[in-house]
Amino acid sequence: MILTHYQTINTLNITSFMQHCSQRCNQTLEGKVDSIPNVSSLREAMLYSITNGGKRFRPTLLYATLEALNTPLATGDDLASAVECIHTYSLIHDDLPAMDDDALRRGKPTCHVQFNEATAILAGDALQTLAFDIIAESEVLTDQQKVSAIQVLARASGPSGMVGGQSHDLASEGKNIDQQELESIHHKKTGVLISACTEMAAIAANASPQTRSALQEFSLTLGLAFQVADDILDITSSTEMLGKQQGADHELDKATYPKFLGLEGAQQYLADLHQKALSLLDKATLDKKETLVELTNFVVHRRY
Amino acid sequence: MILTHYQTINTLNITSFMQHCSQRCNQTLEGKVDSIPNVSSLREAMLYSITNGGKRFRPTLLYATLEALNTPLATGDDLASAVECIHTYSLIHDDLPAMDDDALRRGKPTCHVQFNEATAILAGDALQTLAFDIIAESEVLTDQQKVSAIQVLARASGPSGMVGGQSHDLASEGKNIDQQELESIHHKKTGVLISACTEMAAIAANASPQTRSALQEFSLTLGLAFQVADDILDITSSTEMLGKQQGADHELDKATYPKFLGLEGAQQYLADLHQKALSLLDKATLDKKETLVELTNFVVHRRY
Repeated sequence: MILTHYQTINTLNITSFMQHCSQRCNQTLEGKVDSIPNVSSLREAMLYSITNGGKRFRPTLLYATLEALNTPLATGDDLASAVECIHTYSLIHDDLPAMDDDALRRGKPTCHVQFNEATAILAGDALQTLAFDIIAESEVLTDQQKVSAIQVLARASGPSGMVGGQSHDLASEGKNIDQQELESIHHKKTGVLISACTEMAAIAANASPQTRSALQEFSLTLGLAFQVADDILDITSSTEMLGKQQGADHELDKATYPKFLGLEGAQQYLADLHQKALSLLDKATLDKKETLVELTNFVVHRRY
Repeated sequence: MILTHYQTINTLNITSFMQHCSQRCNQTLEGKVDSIPNVSSLREAMLYSITNGGKRFRPTLLYATLEALNTPLATGDDLASAVECIHTYSLIHDDLPAMDDDALRRGKPTCHVQFNEATAILAGDALQTLAFDIIAESEVLTDQQKVSAIQVLARASGPSGMVGGQSHDLASEGKNIDQQELESIHHKKTGVLISACTEMAAIAANASPQTRSALQEFSLTLGLAFQVADDILDITSSTEMLGKQQGADHELDKATYPKFLGLEGAQQYLADLHQKALSLLDKATLDKKETLVELTNFVVHRRY
């Protein structure tokens, strides 16, 4: 097995890289939100949600891809913040009573519980706008890069991507769907936004179409692994570690990989996706892939 | 009074121009929505809301500005559609139970009544994304124009603009606010998006900064006139003409211009804004301003 040397997660390195990425991203985001007029609870709600202790997995993936393409991390600050705005807005709206009706997110009250529904709807709306604003206003990207990045982010998060996936997910509740349909939902709901991170990094690094395409295949596999790992953690992790009710998906009889494949089957599927992702990385022409490898290992082995 | 010849609304001309603009905008929008996968009610809800008989005032203003700048209307198709996506998304979200809780919009059930709340939230989200997507994907604008237009649209619709205005509006409910604060709310909630129409047209026409600035002053005045006229119509028009409950704002004891100034005072204020807008247009260097003048007259004299 040629990949063995990659497979032990270097927790110290990846943790410190993730912390560094979080700090970069938070600094940009908080600067942007600080410039919003403070006339209602809107700014506070936006800040509450973006500082709610997320892992910053998407920014980290974007920065790790830039590192792999030998491009300064500063090139990705605006793009990483933009993708995190989109991710955060989607969480705020998904948590609403009319959607998943979640009261806890990362161990803290969700935005509509902490503020109110109207504020949560508007904070989500504003974070979405902010994402495109941040890219358009960037001082480190060319107009061509900005337009390409906005295209990628809009396609990934819009009706054919993330929002389409959430709508498909809600429509499938209480219905018998098969694994293929579940995978299609996850592809749209989380996969394409994760993939947008490597795509936007490739745009910022002026990578070749071949590299961009190879990275896309890698990140879509990583995104799927991320989701399978999430479903497994919903069963195996504690409420405290998850920051949300343990077993929530299982209790709701939601379509999950453990439901289709059993817990062991899902764990095997995750291991297969892990191998596939690492193997795709091995095929891509990258300057330095260690951090992307460690991030892949982290996605598979994480405990929360 | 030098402006007298402008002051009779040429209903036939402006109506046929508005119809032409609506058709152009609808064709672009429906084409965009048609390409969305039809796997849930999302696409249907988006289409329902964008085809819900709106006057297309914002697209018409954008096209009229292009005409005034001697630029082909086709240059504005994507921008007009984008601004209408933003406007429509804001209406869908404003109508939600957690916000204004409106059951009727233009005489038809609002999106969340026709579908459900989750679908309405997502349709609004998706229309916002679509707005930026349409501009980024445009085949008639340069990258520089796209970036400038996205900046303008994001600033106008985001937390310092439209969404900020809606949040400020909700926060002011039940409070005693003065006319200055009401004007600040309207400026953000509706004024800057209306102003974005002339700004984006100026960008598409490569107009000088002076012209862009003059048009901005004009359109902000027009936007305020639009709001004052709306408040007056809430009292003087019938439910049938309005397509929503007549007197709704009045009954809710909302801060409106008639509340501050009395009905006659509000009508006088509207007349003053009318004069100011026409006078600003007279000062701007434009190739052909007749349609902008007629549109201004329409805003003031409309009955619905």
